[in-house]
Amino acid sequence: MPRYVCCCRYDGTAYRGFQVQVEENTVCRVLQDALEQLFRVRPEIKGCSRTDSGVHAYAFCFSFLCEKEIDPKRLPAALNTFLPPDVAVVQASFAPEDFHPRYDCLGKEYVYRVLNRRLRDPFYEKKALLWPGKLDEKMLNRAARAFVGEKDFTSFCGSNGKVKEDMVREITEFSVTRKGDEIFFRVRGTGFLYHMVRIMVGTLLQIAQGVYPEDSVEEMLQAKDRRVAGMTAPAHGLYLNRVFYDPVLLSAAEEGAPWLK
Amino acid sequence: MPRYVCCCRYDGTAYRGFQVQVEENTVCRVLQDALEQLFRVRPEIKGCSRTDSGVHAYAFCFSFLCEKEIDPKRLPAALNTFLPPDVAVVQASFAPEDFHPRYDCLGKEYVYRVLNRRLRDPFYEKKALLWPGKLDEKMLNRAARAFVGEKDFTSFCGSNGKVKEDMVREITEFSVTRKGDEIFFRVRGTGFLYHMVRIMVGTLLQIAQGVYPEDSVEEMLQAKDRRVAGMTAPAHGLYLNRVFYDPVLLSAAEEGAPWLK
Repeated sequence: MPRYVCCCRYDGTAYRGFQVQVEENTVCRVLQDALEQLFRVRPEIKGCSRTDSGVHAYAFCFSFLCEKEIDPKRLPAALNTFLPPDVAVVQASFAPEDFHPRYDCLGKEYVYRVLNRRLRDPFYEKKALLWPGKLDEKMLNRAARAFVGEKDFTSFCGSNGKVKEDMVREITEFSVTRKGDEIFFRVRGTGFLYHMVRIMVGTLLQIAQGVYPEDSVEEMLQAKDRRVAGMTAPAHGLYLNRVFYDPVLLSAAEEGAPWLK
Repeated sequence: MPRYVCCCRYDGTAYRGFQVQVEENTVCRVLQDALEQLFRVRPEIKGCSRTDSGVHAYAFCFSFLCEKEIDPKRLPAALNTFLPPDVAVVQASFAPEDFHPRYDCLGKEYVYRVLNRRLRDPFYEKKALLWPGKLDEKMLNRAARAFVGEKDFTSFCGSNGKVKEDMVREITEFSVTRKGDEIFFRVRGTGFLYHMVRIMVGTLLQIAQGVYPEDSVEEMLQAKDRRVAGMTAPAHGLYLNRVFYDPVLLSAAEEGAPWLK
């Protein structure tokens, strides 16, 4: 039975994340609905990540088995006709039958987008966090350096996190850049805990506010206690931007958002 | 009685344009609702332009008289709390009592945004025209050159246009630029006829398709007949980007969208 792997983009505003247990409006469900319309069967979908309610994705990979065969090149356009405007498949290919978009993922890149101005802008509504306070991207970069490496991220894991055993994750890159009045926090790593990016960004924003000193991240990590780290930044600024697999599987998954190019 | 002039931004998707006669959902109406909540009186609003249903604005100027005095610096944030998420006031100041945002306007800049790719993108939904066909921006620039100058634009005026007498308008700038898979048509002029920008852009897109030869604009202008020009491009790609007044009145009105910077 052929296994398909697809890369999709979605505006997460209307969704309770990609996949949840209970029957709710999820991206996974609208994808299954579209697949059912196209294939007349409803395949199970495996996603590359859980994403929270309201979080967006520029590249989200999902995979499914389906006995019906269709040229993967034609699959995105065919599926898109059955998908709502806020979800679109951008690439598809065949994958090995045992491929799993989550376990076979080599790394992910998240981008947290902040609109650093006093007044809100309708074109950034639910697409970036409005933050009127002063943000010095050089200082933020210095403060974020302590996140990079293989570390225990217990202090940066939301209390609803299900992973209780191994809290060690590796962050390979953390950069903060400015483009006009937009600030981008870009975090790349091999794995992430529940709410981890949002707590890291929330902590950095509070460092900018003076709530914590610039060099406090190291100490927070060592404390291994969620209560010592900062706030969880809101979901609507967060984008799953790129997902990395063995080369040639899905080039679109490594494309990312246009704002950072 | 003090006259206020404000610059606002709006995502036009949900609106029947800025101002229409009948009772419908217009940007003007939500602004009046907000003013009424703030001032306890409902001032009449004069806008800098009619804009069509679904057209967006990065800088739209409006003005009103109101006996209640408030520091214009505080007005945008105060009004924004009463405005829906898709409309925001970004600047305000006092203006001479006889100021009219439409008649005192020295020029306007529209931007038409095209997403030139095969598959749709959720983040451009209703914000740009999806155009899968080949677009050569150099050729489009050459073809658009014929629009520049003081000309009779009868062929590029929608048939619902109310102006019947003087169809002469002056286009001071027309440029087509590419940024990745986005194409921006930027048109600056002292005045515009009904649907004029959308018909100019639609015609250029059809020139790119080969429907009309590259050098056909000149002939179309000379014909003074709407039927010889091309299609009216859809509203959702169009932005009123900048509005020009006597300097110092409203600097925000000259700011424009961040994508073109």
